[in-house]
Amino acid sequence: MAPQSTLDIQAARQRASFDPDVLHRVLLAGSKDPDMRKRVAQLISASPAFDKTSKAYLSRPKQIERGLKAARDLFQAVDEHDLDYIEYLEALVSLIDDPIGLNLHEIAFTPVIQAQGSDEQQAEWLPLCYNHAIIGCYLQTELGHGSNVQQLETTATYDTKKDEFVIHSPTISATKWWIGALGILSTHGVVQARLFIGGKDYGPHLFIVQLRSMKDHSLLPGIEAGEIGPKVHGAMSALDNGWARFNNVRIPRKQMLSRFAQVEPSNGGTYVKPPHSKLSYGGMIFIRSQMIGNLSWRLAKAVTISVRYLHMRRQFADPELKPGEEQHGVEKQVISYPAVYMRVIPQLVNTIVFMTAGKDMANLYHAMSAELAGGNTNLLAETHAVSSGLKTYVSSAVVEGCETVRRAMGGHGFLASTGVGRIYATELPSATYEGDNYILNLQVARAALKSFKAFVGSASSDPKDALKNLTASSAYLASLAPPPKLPLSAPTAVKDWQSLSLLQRLLDLRAALTVGRLASLLASGRKFGEMSWECVQVSEAVVEAFLAGRMVEAIGKGGLLTDGAGEREKAVLEKVVTFFLLHRVSHALPSLLEFGILAPSPPLSLSSSTPLKQDAPLEQLRLSLDSVARELLPELVGLTDAFGFSDWELDTTVGNHDGAAYERMLEKAKADEEQNIGSKAEQQRMYREYIRPILERGRKLTGGGGDAKL
Amino acid sequence: MAPQSTLDIQAARQRASFDPDVLHRVLLAGSKDPDMRKRVAQLISASPAFDKTSKAYLSRPKQIERGLKAARDLFQAVDEHDLDYIEYLEALVSLIDDPIGLNLHEIAFTPVIQAQGSDEQQAEWLPLCYNHAIIGCYLQTELGHGSNVQQLETTATYDTKKDEFVIHSPTISATKWWIGALGILSTHGVVQARLFIGGKDYGPHLFIVQLRSMKDHSLLPGIEAGEIGPKVHGAMSALDNGWARFNNVRIPRKQMLSRFAQVEPSNGGTYVKPPHSKLSYGGMIFIRSQMIGNLSWRLAKAVTISVRYLHMRRQFADPELKPGEEQHGVEKQVISYPAVYMRVIPQLVNTIVFMTAGKDMANLYHAMSAELAGGNTNLLAETHAVSSGLKTYVSSAVVEGCETVRRAMGGHGFLASTGVGRIYATELPSATYEGDNYILNLQVARAALKSFKAFVGSASSDPKDALKNLTASSAYLASLAPPPKLPLSAPTAVKDWQSLSLLQRLLDLRAALTVGRLASLLASGRKFGEMSWECVQVSEAVVEAFLAGRMVEAIGKGGLLTDGAGEREKAVLEKVVTFFLLHRVSHALPSLLEFGILAPSPPLSLSSSTPLKQDAPLEQLRLSLDSVARELLPELVGLTDAFGFSDWELDTTVGNHDGAAYERMLEKAKADEEQNIGSKAEQQRMYREYIRPILERGRKLTGGGGDAKL
Repeated sequence: MAPQSTLDIQAARQRASFDPDVLHRVLLAGSKDPDMRKRVAQLISASPAFDKTSKAYLSRPKQIERGLKAARDLFQAVDEHDLDYIEYLEALVSLIDDPIGLNLHEIAFTPVIQAQGSDEQQAEWLPLCYNHAIIGCYLQTELGHGSNVQQLETTATYDTKKDEFVIHSPTISATKWWIGALGILSTHGVVQARLFIGGKDYGPHLFIVQLRSMKDHSLLPGIEAGEIGPKVHGAMSALDNGWARFNNVRIPRKQMLSRFAQVEPSNGGTYVKPPHSKLSYGGMIFIRSQMIGNLSWRLAKAVTISVRYLHMRRQFADPELKPGEEQHGVEKQVISYPAVYMRVIPQLVNTIVFMTAGKDMANLYHAMSAELAGGNTNLLAETHAVSSGLKTYVSSAVVEGCETVRRAMGGHGFLASTGVGRIYATELPSATYEGDNYILNLQVARAALKSFKAFVGSASSDPKDALKNLTASSAYLASLAPPPKLPLSAPTAVKDWQSLSLLQRLLDLRAALTVGRLASLLASGRKFGEMSWECVQVSEAVVEAFLAGRMVEAIGKGGLLTDGAGEREKAVLEKVVTFFLLHRVSHALPSLLEFGILAPSPPLSLSSSTPLKQDAPLEQLRLSLDSVARELLPELVGLTDAFGFSDWELDTTVGNHDGAAYERMLEKAKADEEQNIGSKAEQQRMYREYIRPILERGRKLTGGGGDAKL
Repeated sequence: MAPQSTLDIQAARQRASFDPDVLHRVLLAGSKDPDMRKRVAQLISASPAFDKTSKAYLSRPKQIERGLKAARDLFQAVDEHDLDYIEYLEALVSLIDDPIGLNLHEIAFTPVIQAQGSDEQQAEWLPLCYNHAIIGCYLQTELGHGSNVQQLETTATYDTKKDEFVIHSPTISATKWWIGALGILSTHGVVQARLFIGGKDYGPHLFIVQLRSMKDHSLLPGIEAGEIGPKVHGAMSALDNGWARFNNVRIPRKQMLSRFAQVEPSNGGTYVKPPHSKLSYGGMIFIRSQMIGNLSWRLAKAVTISVRYLHMRRQFADPELKPGEEQHGVEKQVISYPAVYMRVIPQLVNTIVFMTAGKDMANLYHAMSAELAGGNTNLLAETHAVSSGLKTYVSSAVVEGCETVRRAMGGHGFLASTGVGRIYATELPSATYEGDNYILNLQVARAALKSFKAFVGSASSDPKDALKNLTASSAYLASLAPPPKLPLSAPTAVKDWQSLSLLQRLLDLRAALTVGRLASLLASGRKFGEMSWECVQVSEAVVEAFLAGRMVEAIGKGGLLTDGAGEREKAVLEKVVTFFLLHRVSHALPSLLEFGILAPSPPLSLSSSTPLKQDAPLEQLRLSLDSVARELLPELVGLTDAFGFSDWELDTTVGNHDGAAYERMLEKAKADEEQNIGSKAEQQRMYREYIRPILERGRKLTGGGGDAKL
């Protein structure tokens, strides 16, 4: 007979009201071809090169070797199966579980040349990049400088006589640090360094520098480099993050990336300014906009594992159960407890929202790129604001989400073989790289203040014009025109709280007034530099209003969540979006109350015998949230099935398609014993060397009494 | 010249207004002898057995071996330096950075025999335990059963004929799992199993079972056991968590722990009930009450490292700085940003609050034990409630605090060598073990409901009597008598918000009304089983009110925080306590507003040019919090110095006493290169096997063009 956990997961699967395969195609539409993904996944998972069985036990050098081997074997697979570039990228970025050095070549090195190289530089270098005749990394961060790129210390001094740049690391804190793929893999790098011409400092610019010999991979003269060491939680241990120091390394002038700024040899070096001060932001915007979708798929894995496990795990008898009603034993499925599902459902819902926002973001980026190619910078500020806001919000939420679903699994969630801890650890730094979230929050808040002032300034004189100038990222300001009468009258029935337009209005007003509060504080003399804590709240409020608006659009006709969906899929996705908005409104209650957008509850009677007034609006809001959660409960396993992960991709003992968690945990412990505590002979040796001496000492102290008895 | 980071940390150190050595003694008073601690720390850190240099690179079996060797060498140190039991425990539990199997012998195995063994059993077994003539573990959790001890499946069936118990694992889910020190170390265990007599099930009881031979450490017949495998984030890798299955293993009747319940051989086995149903909770209460203090000292380490690093790290120019004012370069210390210090100061403050609460808890536990020894169970319910509430609150806050101070360090916080990630990973399971926090919240809420109903019931008839019956854990209910007039009038001046009695009253009322809300919901027909989400809020509110009350007492005359302190230490500790209460009140704003305890802010003018009203009470609350934070800023390094950790204890590249973070990071990367990416020869081999084939393929694809150029 199948184990109980298999019966449980099968029963949960049958409760879904929709077709997970149809939903799978809706979720992937516009970003990935589901058949391509499946084909490549099968091909990769069948190769012994990508076997994961003993991965967790490898030493650091063996992890590094595994990453290098994966890169080589991936190219063998590309040649053998004639994979195209999209298929290759899917395998590299999404299917191989760990980030390896090669990723950085694709997401950092090549893109920066694509974005910042002149036509000639692109013609010269990109074929080498695409063919991997060179492998590169992107050297920005230094030991002493991360978020503040303007203060990087590495210098690139123009030498008029030789028409060369001299790259140099003047101090210890100028050491390049954290650079992915620099530790052992890369032959080349794009180095960010301050440009000096004739003693004048022009700030950071980008330079292609060959790092290692093409003959034997040894470091070129003047370059000192190595690996920086393990990351927390053993994360990304196959990735060779490196450090580098330059001692007056010379490169030809033509290796400064010069799509925008340039140095001409005339007059001892002439600096030609870029036409738009923010043109060089394109690369960072590209990486950030890619992050949204990628992060959502990582959270999807964690959620899939946790949701499946929580349907198999049973704990505590159901006090409501009548005798004879038990299906399998007497305990309740853990997922059925509010303290469990109210932690897990928000993460599942976020996953779908972030997948959708990722597609939205990609569309915006492509629109901006098309305009930029024609010299039009109209969309740049908007794309920068949206990508910064989404990056900080989504990366924080995904990291927290992975940890939330791991903890919801209770004690067994602490076992590495569940796989969720590994996903968390890998995504953890996403809150810091490509812009520390706290720094990005400042930028989001600045952009919001700018929109707010412009809107408030023109709304009184020409309201129509003010509304017309709003973009997707500032659309929430429309809630201020005409000025709302506060507090809004809040629904007193559970069902009425599920109005998407009401929920969106609440989030819009909260965003507008949160920005308004910051504007007022600044107007009253507080300094922006002291407001970094307030900016965190502003950024969150603005991004939530933005996401609410985009999701309401996505669930509408022809939207990202309805295109290709049948009625049943639309119905469940509508519940997902409703839950998202309701959950965000519940979370925003402090501001909604403080700003008087909603009124407080009527005073509680202080006697436990007086029932709570049934129509207290805030209690109805909570009941409403719980009611949508309960409608989603039977859909959860179906929704995670719709993500479409294979067991090989999940790499878990507790979240496999067929359940059987306890059996797999025990089997794995038995199979891995030697890798955990050594061979039987090693165990015997450790007993003799360490344990026996302690016991013998103890027996002596006890006067030998132990001997006879034991 | 000393590196800048050394100058920065020295300058920060000099800004403290108090004597860190005096404060160190205040913080340790009543729990540890500071001189003893220092002496043992020096002795342990000087021994090569406890060297940490390459610890992070060891394979799993070598980590296990390191743990076993530490145990053996610790006993050598005990004999050589004639350490007493307290000194031995300090070394084992606090100074050796990683938990090892031996810890479980001391904190789980021996205590359960002390608490649950009859006088005869104690006389027989405890000398063996104290001398380590046997080493034991505590087998409770099973694969299928954690929080719900009542449903454990392992059976202990009384065999009348042989007067023995038969221990058996009937199913896969009955497999004992997670058991610390079972994987390789233990000779014995206390097994929790359902007692069956004559076919009747008496529920879980405790049995001493020998697991391994005293001759050669092989598993005894009928016992199958092993190690369960790595934990997430590589945490506790030196600890041999194990699994075990029993196939009708026989033990004599006298090995059932029988201080309370007993089985007598008469009439085919007669069960003698314990005199009080909760008497057997003592052991769990002991472990939980120990956890509070221990967790605070772990957070102290993380905070010390982070605070020191954040004083050395500089990022972004200070826009307020006039030319010539720069001390060291042009960038500001990262700690000076509100978005940084408002994350870090709460953790430092929590550290001191939890240290104090730990001592408070220990005092309560000892009072209860003394009463219990005399058969008086009066304090049992109170001690259970307080220890459950504090355990769930403190473990959650410490885990979150470790992660918060790690993230505040930005990118470099992701480097393992900073040491903070390791502390986080080790403490992570504290939210689950010894009672999953979500389950404990239910118990805290139940106790709170009980007190609330009793109080409200008697307050109307006999208010004096109702007040008299309040205990420390329900003292907050006094805020309801006489019934308060809400909303309270909130201060409109920064200074007035710093009144400890006002802040405590707010937290008391919030706790009382949060419990009141739950009582009302239940009275209106909702079921407690559906309220697990509400119980989280109740538990938090109740514990925060409790902590506020205890801290106000601790800072008073002869309190835990003033005894032995001079005026300057008292002054800074008062700021610490004020910050704690203010921060908790800010955090409680949603409830304070929803329950109408405080009134919302006056409506914002929607024009950015109208300054915010300076006297809006909630803005003053925020300014007040920020103002205390700024008063604490110059004290931070002094406060962390007062925790008294040596560099050996911290084991960090970025948080050493003398600063010099960047230099140490780079030195360590260089020194560890071989352990990270292999020897030079290995690197060459990996180049030839993996990297060169990729590049050669690329050159072929590019038509050989790359060759000439590179």
